[in-house]
Amino acid sequence: MVSNAKGRAMPAELNGRVFLPYESHLGIKPLVHREVGRVTRWRRPGESKVLSSIDEAIEKTGLSDGMTISFHHHLRNGDGVLNMVIERIRKKGIKNLRILPSAMFPVHEPIIEAIKDKTVSSIEGSLNGPVGRFASLGNMDEPVILRSHSGRVRAISQGELKIDVAFIAASCCDQLGNCNGLKGKSAFGPLAFGFADAFYAERSVVITDNLVPFPAYPISIPGTNIDYIVKVDSIGDPSGILSGTLKITQRPDHLKIVENTMLVMDSIGLLKDGFSFQAGAGGISLALTKRIGDLFREKGLSASYANGGTTRYLVDMLKNGTLKSLSTGQAFDLSAINSLLNDTNHFEITVDQYSNLHTGATSTEPEQAAFLGATEVDVGFNVNVNTHSDGYLLHGIGGHQDVAYGSQLTFITVPLSRKGNPIIKEKVTTISTPGELVDIVVTEKGLAVNTQHVRDEVRERNEEIEKALLSKDLPVKQMEYLRKLSLKEGKDIEPRFGDELIGLVKYIDGTVLDSIISVRE
Amino acid sequence: MVSNAKGRAMPAELNGRVFLPYESHLGIKPLVHREVGRVTRWRRPGESKVLSSIDEAIEKTGLSDGMTISFHHHLRNGDGVLNMVIERIRKKGIKNLRILPSAMFPVHEPIIEAIKDKTVSSIEGSLNGPVGRFASLGNMDEPVILRSHSGRVRAISQGELKIDVAFIAASCCDQLGNCNGLKGKSAFGPLAFGFADAFYAERSVVITDNLVPFPAYPISIPGTNIDYIVKVDSIGDPSGILSGTLKITQRPDHLKIVENTMLVMDSIGLLKDGFSFQAGAGGISLALTKRIGDLFREKGLSASYANGGTTRYLVDMLKNGTLKSLSTGQAFDLSAINSLLNDTNHFEITVDQYSNLHTGATSTEPEQAAFLGATEVDVGFNVNVNTHSDGYLLHGIGGHQDVAYGSQLTFITVPLSRKGNPIIKEKVTTISTPGELVDIVVTEKGLAVNTQHVRDEVRERNEEIEKALLSKDLPVKQMEYLRKLSLKEGKDIEPRFGDELIGLVKYIDGTVLDSIISVRE
Repeated sequence: MVSNAKGRAMPAELNGRVFLPYESHLGIKPLVHREVGRVTRWRRPGESKVLSSIDEAIEKTGLSDGMTISFHHHLRNGDGVLNMVIERIRKKGIKNLRILPSAMFPVHEPIIEAIKDKTVSSIEGSLNGPVGRFASLGNMDEPVILRSHSGRVRAISQGELKIDVAFIAASCCDQLGNCNGLKGKSAFGPLAFGFADAFYAERSVVITDNLVPFPAYPISIPGTNIDYIVKVDSIGDPSGILSGTLKITQRPDHLKIVENTMLVMDSIGLLKDGFSFQAGAGGISLALTKRIGDLFREKGLSASYANGGTTRYLVDMLKNGTLKSLSTGQAFDLSAINSLLNDTNHFEITVDQYSNLHTGATSTEPEQAAFLGATEVDVGFNVNVNTHSDGYLLHGIGGHQDVAYGSQLTFITVPLSRKGNPIIKEKVTTISTPGELVDIVVTEKGLAVNTQHVRDEVRERNEEIEKALLSKDLPVKQMEYLRKLSLKEGKDIEPRFGDELIGLVKYIDGTVLDSIISVRE
Repeated sequence: MVSNAKGRAMPAELNGRVFLPYESHLGIKPLVHREVGRVTRWRRPGESKVLSSIDEAIEKTGLSDGMTISFHHHLRNGDGVLNMVIERIRKKGIKNLRILPSAMFPVHEPIIEAIKDKTVSSIEGSLNGPVGRFASLGNMDEPVILRSHSGRVRAISQGELKIDVAFIAASCCDQLGNCNGLKGKSAFGPLAFGFADAFYAERSVVITDNLVPFPAYPISIPGTNIDYIVKVDSIGDPSGILSGTLKITQRPDHLKIVENTMLVMDSIGLLKDGFSFQAGAGGISLALTKRIGDLFREKGLSASYANGGTTRYLVDMLKNGTLKSLSTGQAFDLSAINSLLNDTNHFEITVDQYSNLHTGATSTEPEQAAFLGATEVDVGFNVNVNTHSDGYLLHGIGGHQDVAYGSQLTFITVPLSRKGNPIIKEKVTTISTPGELVDIVVTEKGLAVNTQHVRDEVRERNEEIEKALLSKDLPVKQMEYLRKLSLKEGKDIEPRFGDELIGLVKYIDGTVLDSIISVRE
């Protein structure tokens, strides 16, 4: 075990694989200049790509023991494809697979059985809920490797993760494999999370419940990246595909956080023509987006750009002219899907375009502000979104690092406590996003600006911001003070850690930010 | 020198490079499974991609003696970028460059001076007019290597052609390098021909006269594939960008060819709902497209798909519902550009998606019929589009092989003679597209079906077609008879060949179809 720049212990090597320690929020330079390349997908003229079953796809792709297979998570908690494919693989007795889901949801609980019988031996990418709890108890042979959305794509494109077979769920696909997630009964939005998988995998298979005559368009993933197509009855449950529970927060403490965030932005002059931003789909983010939209309409202002995870609040802004352009890598409601199909100033982007720092052109970079949540924040501004305070690994990184890295000003909007658990910590249980990427923490009772930043230009800018906020009488505090406020609302939970390494958190550049240790039940 | 499957002499090796002989129209399997990969384009946060001049781009990219640089031809005869860049390179005294223009036009005549002073030592891709004539006279140190549009992209993606610096003209680009050719004063349409260049080049530079704030959209080439951006006053002359001379033929003999082609399609039952096709921008193709559109509107029919080179005749069909979907890799008029920006059933495709046979998903494959021209056709159905009958190399291959390879039924629409030169030959001067890809030759006085095809299924289908045409009393002839009709209209020109190899014609799979010999003035 070695210690990284954040002082966290981590293995320098594990099962023959080398792990580099986290160095700096600026990221390390790519270790490779030329990435691993793409695959030539030739077939004899006249040969069909459309296969009769998942079993046939498993055979044709040569899927066998020890291979790496991948899935995207656009179908979210309605996804039927991961379970369906793993079930057929289990039936065939294939063992020791490494799976790379871009995220997992409670619906994927059946994967636990496939882990128990050694069909699946390791998970890299993201996991959540039941499978995370299972892993936390030390039930997996190998530690889970957690990556952010763009960290995963960087790893795939640089050969750190070699995919043998990618399974791409699509709600609309033609006989050549051109596909999208925008049309069909199971429409779920962009196919951003599957793009790199299809492009870099040795073999890629579209699983669709809507095989249409050529051309399927818009083309989110071109057939040039697809080997085989399997038609199934259903790729998922539409009611779980879209976050049906998207609800603007009504809680007074949360609304106070929104209020404080709006005051901060107003004080530093962000809320004017040309504003660009990103907000997520949590209750606070939704309320914030709606507030920005309402204010801009009222004042006749227009934002130049927003980056989704897209909900109807962003689409509303686009439609009423308070937002000029919108890019989406993930759709959270039907409104986002319809808008992608019809609004010419709303476009789909891949994860590479979204936030892969090794591309030199992330769509997060032009964002003047981004609003992110947290499970915990510590006095060093470090954020935990992976483990709960009891130590259980229950969430993936998602795009947290990606957005915090790219955007010019990163807000963490977070309540002081949740169910008696103080959210501001001395040290976060797990570092998911290093404090160097966080500029302002906003709670319901006070906010803190990161004026201890290691980079001069960031520190100086943040000092200016702090001054401006103080001059407007905003409740600017030190993180240590917020920690005290937080402690007034409850008592820190003591995790009952075991002694097993059950997960590693990678930074977007591929270095290791933190280790996750097992929990005793 | 060896002889290929078409009996044409060719070098097996040249200047240390190995050349494979043409084997079959089905193409050889890719020699590589993993292609050459993509380039990681990292830059330090805050570092700008926007440079002050082409000179600075030459310096930053490390452009130096012996390198390979590429250009796309979407600006056509209005292109200012190729000449502008070569001029700056000349000024710097850099020598022996290999240039890969996806096509050249008369406007590029100044390149001849750069060849004379050894700035440019070889050309691979396509050339035309004055530069072709110059090469034909044996003025270049190395033979020109001609590739079709998709053959060029296949070669780039498989490492047969390694690009050191790609120069991408764009009419709209943001500070991250996201760009398109659809907006701005110099709008020219898709950026299809530049996509692979930007993706695979070691370094890529956008040259734009319209630098816009992020995001430039639609994103035809993402900034993830761009290193540098140079803003110039003008990338070209809009009047030359679009083929202003697009004119439907009025010549009675040409209209007779159109008439005969319509009769053929009607006889074999193609002209019905669901029809899919591709036609070019020549006078005969335009007339044919308009005839199809008129007929479909009159009869209330709708075609399912057309593939551009796109002109207003295809856009008209799309708008009036006689065409359901349209893909475009090249725009020939403003109507095509406006439609790409506004019609959701009209989408841009890259050359890879268009017709690269090593992708397993070409957009030409679903075409039931394609209509192509020819400079010469011979009794073996072989087509020449490169050299004139006097031996001069005056044209690139364009997409001729690509479309003939992909489409289900390839028509060659051609007059029996041009200016006293019989167009039907015993043997074409140069084989640009092998006869195995041609199904029906239509002239003003008769037509011929390729019933001698080497593949049983094609031969049998073509025999059925011939039968159907005869039963409708269409003027079905043998190619030898068309040759005689052709000869009645003039006398074959005898080229005055020299003894120098000045060019090689590659088939889409990378093998060599034919050699081009110098001409004595």
